[in-house]
Amino acid sequence: MKPVRIGLLGIGTVGGGTFEVLKRNREEITRRAGRHIEVAWVAARDLDRARAIVGPDIPVVADAVAAVSDPDVDVIVEVIGGTTVAKDAILRAIAHGKHIVTANKALLAIDGNEILSAANTHGVMIAFEAAVSGCIPIVKALREGLAANRIEWIAGIINGTSNYILSEMRTKKLPFAAALEAAQRLGYAEADPTFDIEGIDAAHKLTLLSAIGFGIPVQFDRAYIEGISKLTDRDITYAEELGYRIKLLGITRRAPTGIELRVHPTLIPAGRIIASVDGAMNAILVKSDAAGVTMYYGAGAGAEPTASAVIADIIEVTRLMQAEPEERVPFLAFQSDALSDVRILPMADVETSYYLRVRVKDVVGVLADIARTLADAGISVASMLQQGAGDADNETDIVILTHRTRERNFDAAIAKLVQMPTVRPEYARIRREDLG
Amino acid sequence: MKPVRIGLLGIGTVGGGTFEVLKRNREEITRRAGRHIEVAWVAARDLDRARAIVGPDIPVVADAVAAVSDPDVDVIVEVIGGTTVAKDAILRAIAHGKHIVTANKALLAIDGNEILSAANTHGVMIAFEAAVSGCIPIVKALREGLAANRIEWIAGIINGTSNYILSEMRTKKLPFAAALEAAQRLGYAEADPTFDIEGIDAAHKLTLLSAIGFGIPVQFDRAYIEGISKLTDRDITYAEELGYRIKLLGITRRAPTGIELRVHPTLIPAGRIIASVDGAMNAILVKSDAAGVTMYYGAGAGAEPTASAVIADIIEVTRLMQAEPEERVPFLAFQSDALSDVRILPMADVETSYYLRVRVKDVVGVLADIARTLADAGISVASMLQQGAGDADNETDIVILTHRTRERNFDAAIAKLVQMPTVRPEYARIRREDLG
Repeated sequence: MKPVRIGLLGIGTVGGGTFEVLKRNREEITRRAGRHIEVAWVAARDLDRARAIVGPDIPVVADAVAAVSDPDVDVIVEVIGGTTVAKDAILRAIAHGKHIVTANKALLAIDGNEILSAANTHGVMIAFEAAVSGCIPIVKALREGLAANRIEWIAGIINGTSNYILSEMRTKKLPFAAALEAAQRLGYAEADPTFDIEGIDAAHKLTLLSAIGFGIPVQFDRAYIEGISKLTDRDITYAEELGYRIKLLGITRRAPTGIELRVHPTLIPAGRIIASVDGAMNAILVKSDAAGVTMYYGAGAGAEPTASAVIADIIEVTRLMQAEPEERVPFLAFQSDALSDVRILPMADVETSYYLRVRVKDVVGVLADIARTLADAGISVASMLQQGAGDADNETDIVILTHRTRERNFDAAIAKLVQMPTVRPEYARIRREDLG
Repeated sequence: MKPVRIGLLGIGTVGGGTFEVLKRNREEITRRAGRHIEVAWVAARDLDRARAIVGPDIPVVADAVAAVSDPDVDVIVEVIGGTTVAKDAILRAIAHGKHIVTANKALLAIDGNEILSAANTHGVMIAFEAAVSGCIPIVKALREGLAANRIEWIAGIINGTSNYILSEMRTKKLPFAAALEAAQRLGYAEADPTFDIEGIDAAHKLTLLSAIGFGIPVQFDRAYIEGISKLTDRDITYAEELGYRIKLLGITRRAPTGIELRVHPTLIPAGRIIASVDGAMNAILVKSDAAGVTMYYGAGAGAEPTASAVIADIIEVTRLMQAEPEERVPFLAFQSDALSDVRILPMADVETSYYLRVRVKDVVGVLADIARTLADAGISVASMLQQGAGDADNETDIVILTHRTRERNFDAAIAKLVQMPTVRPEYARIRREDLG
């Protein structure tokens, strides 16, 4: 068969990895795909740098948006990132009938509905396995492998940078700032780490997982997002003493009144297999009615792991380019006329259980007062521990694990607690999930 | 669209689960597949029992082989198991142009080449996700998700019964027989547990994983198979003291001179995430050149987990029934004219490292003698431990971890060791893998 020709937008980390793996595994990939995959040209801002990577035989062009109309390419592979040039290029490519493979989680989480609708109109495919957790074939697992199931929840470690930092804080007893510095030194965190440590990158991915898990439009603007920058090593240690690990999780769940969509630090039982996922690795748990709990684990970022997903998508698009639309898996797992409009729950309406650490005067009756305040709010306490005797200021930490309650309710109870004269105004509140 | 009609061969555990999930999730599945999936009829040996499950509206027939030619069905779902009736029915269905979904690992591992070749000739699909580790979409991950990669090795806990027994032996310090009894009581092991505990079921699955990982024909007859029935809790405890867990692994690896295909108890570092997979759960590690290590975890058996995979396959077959052959993923991941004929290595030629426990007279110089014998055979010792002082008979256990060597070489060295007057003839030799 005639080779399929792709236009590669971007030759940075992921683009370079894609180029390299396509070259190195050319024979293996052809044995699988049944035809050669050829890079027709590469679009890059820095032409010299691009030429140094791709060599003299492959044209390098400067204008990504102009390039995508090339009648000689079938598939546009977008690995520029960002939501400006990438969006213009993708929409223009779709309008010219090109199929799209993209690793761009931010763009799809924010503008996905517009892009997928354009792709529907023009009858082209948008493949985005690489946009969620690098090499892990989680999009395929959710859209196809678990297609028989009603998905109940998805919970994942989907940001390697944060997971690396939390692993360092736990195993080396480091404060957040020192662990972040280590991550930056090793290249796991960028100079401006905001996207990773504040949960935004995880929320982009979670938005996509939620859409394909539940057949709903992407709704990044409704996601609740809380990062790890305010976590203390003290709470990580207390959690560990109680048999828990703290992980930055993206959680999306089908609740009775809507869909939960939330990223935040979470206490999970240390015995759960996902609790052992350390360093920069990613892992995603899926709970569904027939399969039960399944988990998918691997490198969530990096040049070649991401290239692995990009190329898997290129092969699939290649295979189905001539197929009828109904022979392709729907973008969001459900037929486009069967998407549902279940609302995303505001965080105040989410029910979960909590870890609460307050600092109190070590006087008789303070525990009883706290317990009473929680009971009055209808909050059931699972355990309550005083961590050590009072210090020089006669103050001590109280750590409380609650049963499930609505967040609105819990926050109101905390507001009352910290007005008590024996309780200091600073506290740590971390959500707790069983994941069973 | 017109519903797709399936003929369901077998209404036992998996068939019953498939019927139930198709009914319960009918709306969800239709939203995904774009058309209804209807059970046209069920074939079963026990007609009354079958009728009690499927109700009065669905015909029940006795002769599975005769039924498959029904012009009114598009897909035959074979969940009878075994290699006799199932084989006849599948070959006849293929000859009548029906697509096949099957959970039958034994049949595909033994007669897969014949069956896949017949399917090729008649242009029909054979989908077998349910044949390997229940709900875990590992066939899809290997054939599609990792299609960009050169697979280096696959190592999996792919028999839940054995894993349950080993978990019980470790956590409750039980001997093998007691743990097996517990597994039988809970329904994890059958009355005749041979297939599970002797590694045969795992070898069936591994044969399929090897074929789709490396693009080679199925070669169950070349698999090396060793079960767990001779494992002692003593070795499990020693392994744990050394920082290892013992798991029954199926391992297939691309070695320089051939493909390894082997099932046996294996020491793995306790810190590896797969070492934490306990109870009846399955998990499969895949090491590939671009993605690195990925892992897939879930229930490897049971009515609904297996139904999850069966129905995912039905949906995929439904989607691609009208597609051109090149639009479908090749059966064994590689185009049928691109399968390779790399040989399976005999176990004697496999290189790995070992755990060896021998019982010796507790006399001066015995350790030195053993070390010398191993050194003379070119075997490098990683560590060597005497477990406790001599007992009443003045005997003690010596445990040795070796570096990598060829199995033939190691066995020859053991033969010499046990001829030494200070060494008892009984020993335990367990292979050790790093899985890094």
